[in-house]
Amino acid sequence: MSFFIRLDRTPDATLHDQLVEQTRQAILTRRLSAGTRLPASRTLAAELGISRNVIVAAFDELISEGYLEGRVGSGTYVTNDLPSAPGRTLAAPVGMPRWLRHEQRIAATTPPLARDAIDFRLGTPTITPLPLDVWRRAWRDALDVLPPTQYGPVAGDPDLRAAIAGYLGRARGIACGADDVIVTAGAAQALDLIARATLAPGDTVGMEEPGYPEARNLFLAQQAHLLPVPVDDDGLRVDCLLTGPTAPLLLYVTPSHQYPLGARLPVARRMALLAWAAANDSLIIEDDYDSEFRFDAPPLPALAGLDETGHVAYIGTFSKVLTPSLRAGYLVAPQPLRARIVGLMQLTARLTPWPVQRALTHFLVSGDLERHIRRMRRHYAAKRAALHDALAPVAPLARLQGLEAGLHAYLELRPDLDAATIIARAAARGVIVYPLGDYYIGAPDRCGILLGYGGLTCDDVVRGTCILADVITEAYATRLFGDL
Amino acid sequence: MSFFIRLDRTPDATLHDQLVEQTRQAILTRRLSAGTRLPASRTLAAELGISRNVIVAAFDELISEGYLEGRVGSGTYVTNDLPSAPGRTLAAPVGMPRWLRHEQRIAATTPPLARDAIDFRLGTPTITPLPLDVWRRAWRDALDVLPPTQYGPVAGDPDLRAAIAGYLGRARGIACGADDVIVTAGAAQALDLIARATLAPGDTVGMEEPGYPEARNLFLAQQAHLLPVPVDDDGLRVDCLLTGPTAPLLLYVTPSHQYPLGARLPVARRMALLAWAAANDSLIIEDDYDSEFRFDAPPLPALAGLDETGHVAYIGTFSKVLTPSLRAGYLVAPQPLRARIVGLMQLTARLTPWPVQRALTHFLVSGDLERHIRRMRRHYAAKRAALHDALAPVAPLARLQGLEAGLHAYLELRPDLDAATIIARAAARGVIVYPLGDYYIGAPDRCGILLGYGGLTCDDVVRGTCILADVITEAYATRLFGDL
Repeated sequence: MSFFIRLDRTPDATLHDQLVEQTRQAILTRRLSAGTRLPASRTLAAELGISRNVIVAAFDELISEGYLEGRVGSGTYVTNDLPSAPGRTLAAPVGMPRWLRHEQRIAATTPPLARDAIDFRLGTPTITPLPLDVWRRAWRDALDVLPPTQYGPVAGDPDLRAAIAGYLGRARGIACGADDVIVTAGAAQALDLIARATLAPGDTVGMEEPGYPEARNLFLAQQAHLLPVPVDDDGLRVDCLLTGPTAPLLLYVTPSHQYPLGARLPVARRMALLAWAAANDSLIIEDDYDSEFRFDAPPLPALAGLDETGHVAYIGTFSKVLTPSLRAGYLVAPQPLRARIVGLMQLTARLTPWPVQRALTHFLVSGDLERHIRRMRRHYAAKRAALHDALAPVAPLARLQGLEAGLHAYLELRPDLDAATIIARAAARGVIVYPLGDYYIGAPDRCGILLGYGGLTCDDVVRGTCILADVITEAYATRLFGDL
Repeated sequence: MSFFIRLDRTPDATLHDQLVEQTRQAILTRRLSAGTRLPASRTLAAELGISRNVIVAAFDELISEGYLEGRVGSGTYVTNDLPSAPGRTLAAPVGMPRWLRHEQRIAATTPPLARDAIDFRLGTPTITPLPLDVWRRAWRDALDVLPPTQYGPVAGDPDLRAAIAGYLGRARGIACGADDVIVTAGAAQALDLIARATLAPGDTVGMEEPGYPEARNLFLAQQAHLLPVPVDDDGLRVDCLLTGPTAPLLLYVTPSHQYPLGARLPVARRMALLAWAAANDSLIIEDDYDSEFRFDAPPLPALAGLDETGHVAYIGTFSKVLTPSLRAGYLVAPQPLRARIVGLMQLTARLTPWPVQRALTHFLVSGDLERHIRRMRRHYAAKRAALHDALAPVAPLARLQGLEAGLHAYLELRPDLDAATIIARAAARGVIVYPLGDYYIGAPDRCGILLGYGGLTCDDVVRGTCILADVITEAYATRLFGDL
C-alpha cells in the first residue's frame, strides 16, 4: 500500500487530500484491484509516519465515494462494484520483435475437452472412484510440519525414490534401488530431459509408426531426425530396425500398450529389441504408460527389468493411476545418463514440489496406491466391456483392437469406409473421436478411429459408442447405395 | 504379486513348491523388497486361480524359513531382517555409450549445505516463523475435493493468475491482468523457458558483471554468446550497453537487489534502460527476486510496471517468501512471447501441480502471504542488524554493502587483503562464506565476500560474523607483519 502513496509535506495539498487522491488513482488504474483488502489504519499510519486519524478520515471519504467498502469485523476493501473500465494489461511490442525472429520449431496445443459432447480424448483417466478420505490421508504428512527451506535432492526425496523402486520391483519386475530413480514432473518432462541430455541436431531417433505425437514433437524440438519403424498387431517390428552405422541413436517405444494401436510387445520381441540395442549401442526409451491397466491378459516384464547391458531408460507416470493435474512421474535410467539428467534438472526445473512428493510417498508406502489401481482396474474393465458390447453389432465393418490393456481402443475400419466422413458425422451428433492418421509421420497404412474411454462415464461410453455404431452403419449403407 | 508367479500345472512340482520357490527367488533378487506387504491370501488365490489353502500353506512355510513375517491384524510382509546381500541395481553400459558422446554443454551442481558449519549460502530463506496452522489452512482448499483429472490450463489456474496479478499490482506497481501471468515451477524454469523460446545458437545475451551464475548457465545451455555489462554501486551501467547491430538480443538484470552486489537500480537508470530496450528492440529479463525484502528504503517500481513498449519479461518467485521446496514462481511477459512460452510448456513440463496452485491461491487471496512477508521483513531485519553490528569493528578493512534489500550482503575487502586466504581461514574455523570472484564471466574488478544470512539463526549470524571479523583482523595483522 505504502507503495502508491508519496506524501508531500509542503502545504500545496493536505495529507488528507493527497491520500484520498492517490488511493483513488491506484484503484482507477487497477494497481489496487477490486476486492483487495487494505492494510489496517494502524499499520498504514505507522508505515507512512502520519496520524491514524488522517487514514481513518481518508478511508471514510473513499467509502462514501464508493471506491472502498468497510466489512464489519473484517476490514476495508476496494469495492467490487467499480464500473468495469477496461483493466490495464501489459504493453505489447509493435510488430514482431527481433527476439522472436527465430521461428519456434515446435509447440503443442491441446484444445480443451468438448463440453457439450462426448469426447473420446486419449490419455484421459478418471479419479472419482478414489475415496476423498484416502486423498486427504495422503496429504497429512505434508501438513504435519513446515516444508524444508532447502531445495532438497534434485532427483527427489530418498523415501519417495525408495518407494517407487519398491513399487517397480513388485509391479513391473524391475530390480532397481532408490538411487536408480529420478522423480519427474510427469512423463513429458522425463522425455524432454532425456532428449536434451542426449541429442544434438541431426541425431536420429526411431519412432513407432504410428506413434505418440508428443514424443515426436519433443525430439523435433531438439532438431532430431525421425526414423519411423513399422508396427503390426504385435507392436514394434523389431526386424525392421536399421542396424550398424544407420541405427538410430535413440528408440522410443511403448511396449505395454502400443500408442496408439494398443498391441502388447511379446517377450520374444522384447528380447530381440534388447539384443538390437546392445549390438548397435542405441538407447531404448521405454514409455510404460498405461501398464497398470491390464484386462484378461498376463503381465509382461518391462524392458528395463530384462535389460542386462544398461541400454534402457524407463519412464512411468502417476498421471494415469491418479491424475495428470498432480504432475508427477519417474524415470529409471542407467548411471551415466542419470547423472547428466540430474545436472540438467539442477539447472532448470529442479525438483517436484516437496508436498507432492510427501503425499506420493504416503500413497505408495501405505498401499493406498496399489489398492486404488486394483479398484480402477475393475472400474475401467466395466467401461471397456460397455465399449466392446456397444460396438459388437458393427464388428464386420469395424474391428476393435488394443483392448487388453490401457485406457483407449483402436477401431479399424473396413478399407472401403472413410474415417474422415465417419468422424465428421459423429461430431455432428455430439461424439468426438480421433483419426488414426494424425499419429503417423508418413502416409498411413491403416484406416481407423481411436477411442479413449478412461475419462468418460459408463453411460457416456455406451451412448457415444452406440451413436458411433449408428454412424458407421449409415456410412456403409450410403456406400452401398453409391455402388448400386 | 501374480507377476512373479508362473504356475505350471504339469506334475513336475506341486503348486505349493512352485509358489514357495518363486516367492523365495523374488525376495532374494529384491524384486519383492524388505517390508513389502503381500496381498491377502484370498486376493492372491483368486488372481492365480488356485485354492486359498495352498497360499496359506506356502506363506506359512516362508514364514518359518524367515523370508516372510506375519503381523497380527495387519497381514504378511517380506521380513526386514534379510541378510543385506548386495541389492540388485540397474545394469550400466560398459564404457561411454554413443548416446552420451555429445558433451553436455552445461550442468549445475549445488553441494549440500555444510552440516557442522555456519554456512552463509546465498539464496537460502527460512520459513520457520510461519505458524503451522497458516500453512495447514492454505492446503485446506486443495483437500476439500478430489483433484481434476484434466491437466488444466498450462499457464496456471485462472484464480491463481488473477491473485498473482493483484499482488503484483499492489506490491510492485505492475498493472497487469490474470491473462498476463504464467505460473511456473520457480524462477529457474521461467528463465529456461524464455531462453528456449527466444535464443538460437550464437545469439547474444547481456549479463550483469558480476551476475547470477545460474542464469549464465541457462543461456550457455542454449549456446548463447554472453556480453558482460559492468555494474557499479547503483547497479547496471546502462551507459555501457552496446547499441545498434551489436546490442544484445536479451538482457538479464536484477534491479531490486543486484545479484550479487546488492545495489538497487535508481529510477533514472530504469527509465534509461527501458529507452535502450525500445530503441534497440531488445528484451529485458527482469529477475525481481528478493524484491519483497526492503529495509529502511523506499520501494522502487518494477521495470515491468514502467515499461510502455512491451520489452520486459518479469520473473518472480515464491521461493524466497515461502520456500524453494514449493517450486513455484511466475512470469509476466508481453503477448507474443507469452504464447510461445505456453506452447513450449505444453510440450514439456506442463503446469504446476494443482494442489500447489490451490494452496498458493489461498495464501494470496486470504492475505496470509502478505502478512507472512511483513513478519519476515521484521525477522530478516533483526538478522541484518546483527550482521551489520558484528562487522562494524572491521569497517576500515571491509565495507559492508547491499544491505537495503534482499537476504544477503556483500563485504568488500580492502585491496591489500586476500579474499581466498580469508575464506579458507574462516572455513577452517567452521564458517563458510563465498568469494565474489565466482560471479564474474571475465576477470574480477573487485575483491570481496558474499554473505547470505536468510537461512541462518540470529545466533549463528552473530557467531559466524564475529569469527569472520576475527579472521579479517588476523589477516590484516599478518599482512602488517609481512610488511615490516
